[in-house]
Amino acid sequence: MKNTYNNVINYIYGKNSVLEAISQNPKRINKIYFSQGINFDNKLKKINELAQKNSILIQFTNLNKFNKYFENGEKKLTNINFQGVIASVSPVEYLDFEDFLNQNSNSYRKIVILDGVEDPHNFGAIIRTLAAASYDSVIVPKHRSCPISATVEKTSVGAINHIPVIKANSLPTIVDTLKKNNWWIIAADGQSKDNYFDISYKDMNFAIILGAEGEGVSKTLLNKADFKVKIPSNFESLNVSAACAVIVYESIRQIHQM
Amino acid sequence: MKNTYNNVINYIYGKNSVLEAISQNPKRINKIYFSQGINFDNKLKKINELAQKNSILIQFTNLNKFNKYFENGEKKLTNINFQGVIASVSPVEYLDFEDFLNQNSNSYRKIVILDGVEDPHNFGAIIRTLAAASYDSVIVPKHRSCPISATVEKTSVGAINHIPVIKANSLPTIVDTLKKNNWWIIAADGQSKDNYFDISYKDMNFAIILGAEGEGVSKTLLNKADFKVKIPSNFESLNVSAACAVIVYESIRQIHQM
Repeated sequence: MKNTYNNVINYIYGKNSVLEAISQNPKRINKIYFSQGINFDNKLKKINELAQKNSILIQFTNLNKFNKYFENGEKKLTNINFQGVIASVSPVEYLDFEDFLNQNSNSYRKIVILDGVEDPHNFGAIIRTLAAASYDSVIVPKHRSCPISATVEKTSVGAINHIPVIKANSLPTIVDTLKKNNWWIIAADGQSKDNYFDISYKDMNFAIILGAEGEGVSKTLLNKADFKVKIPSNFESLNVSAACAVIVYESIRQIHQM
Repeated sequence: MKNTYNNVINYIYGKNSVLEAISQNPKRINKIYFSQGINFDNKLKKINELAQKNSILIQFTNLNKFNKYFENGEKKLTNINFQGVIASVSPVEYLDFEDFLNQNSNSYRKIVILDGVEDPHNFGAIIRTLAAASYDSVIVPKHRSCPISATVEKTSVGAINHIPVIKANSLPTIVDTLKKNNWWIIAADGQSKDNYFDISYKDMNFAIILGAEGEGVSKTLLNKADFKVKIPSNFESLNVSAACAVIVYESIRQIHQM
């Protein structure tokens, strides 16, 4: 059983390694991949059970496509015996939403919610901006989000170790809970009449929701938002990480300046 | 002589094709590559002469590394006979600085100067932001800049066709000329005491200078700037395209709002 943490931090394989990881550190497991058509022995059954208990995504697939992630220096390995299971592991631990909400804080808190941002370069750039602006957290959905990969870590220039990431089963539920706790919800929406600089970001806890390139923030979340704001543009919308920087730094400007 | 414009817009090769391109459209040629140790016949001499006359960069190199850029659908070509010369061609035409300066404009003009930004993704993202914000142009140095490649065009989502690019032999000369013409020069500088939102961007022609990741704006240009501004950060500096979006949109906010 080779634990591949040395070469690749993103994936581990083998029944014992995966079982150990999911038992010890379930919050760091992004996803479990089982080989298509595999017969579940006791260890695989236990992995499956722990994955379900911890709401970890499960996918059945042909594991051979993962060969490329397990390289031994210059030597490319092929046909590794994965023993039917691979776990994608995050280099950082995710934060519990409830724990975050109950944290004591002397100052107002600011977070970003990413609704469907799947590109690792954008995700990494956003994390870097949030660390620069001292934001408190970023919330991503369990589905349709970007796992915390080596690319994210690199693009964030290490900021991923400074910004706690919360993984949500349901963004609408998270938004409802935030609202019940007197947070204000601001959604980016190209169709809005209000500009992002027309609203106040001061003296309140708030969450900024940003959507995927092209699709934007989902209707469900837009309907729950207290404010919808656009970034005026005479061309197409900004890239999502540029949009994030613009809105986040408007909040910083207001807090600094006024 | 194959003119490869159909498959690849970035490079053309062959004496006749390159000679035609450099004669007809010298402003669109980024660079001429000659084969190392080639004997110059009349056509190559003429190409060399026109390149020098139009201040086009010239490099002597092993041309075989360019094989990968000339693909014929699925079939990879190797050992193409380049006839000793390849031209890197921009998909858009560069604008003359003098022409830009002498353009009539009813409103104040806003530009960005990139001092050493060589990453095509950052360059493309910056172009996209400038198009969204209706900036008038971007100035890049002839050396240490990013050629307008397919990556730039893609990352800019086509905005490269909307923002005229000016290629400068010398950025300090450009800045001096702008200042003589009553433009204001604003340089991004992490060491500055002033924040980017502490200055006014209204009722003036101005240029924002952004530097390369890590190195920042060169000392020569910093010394010429009328304003030096920082983006406050509790982590590392922002990525250059995020920094560009933040400062550019602060100017838009001020012009819209006040």
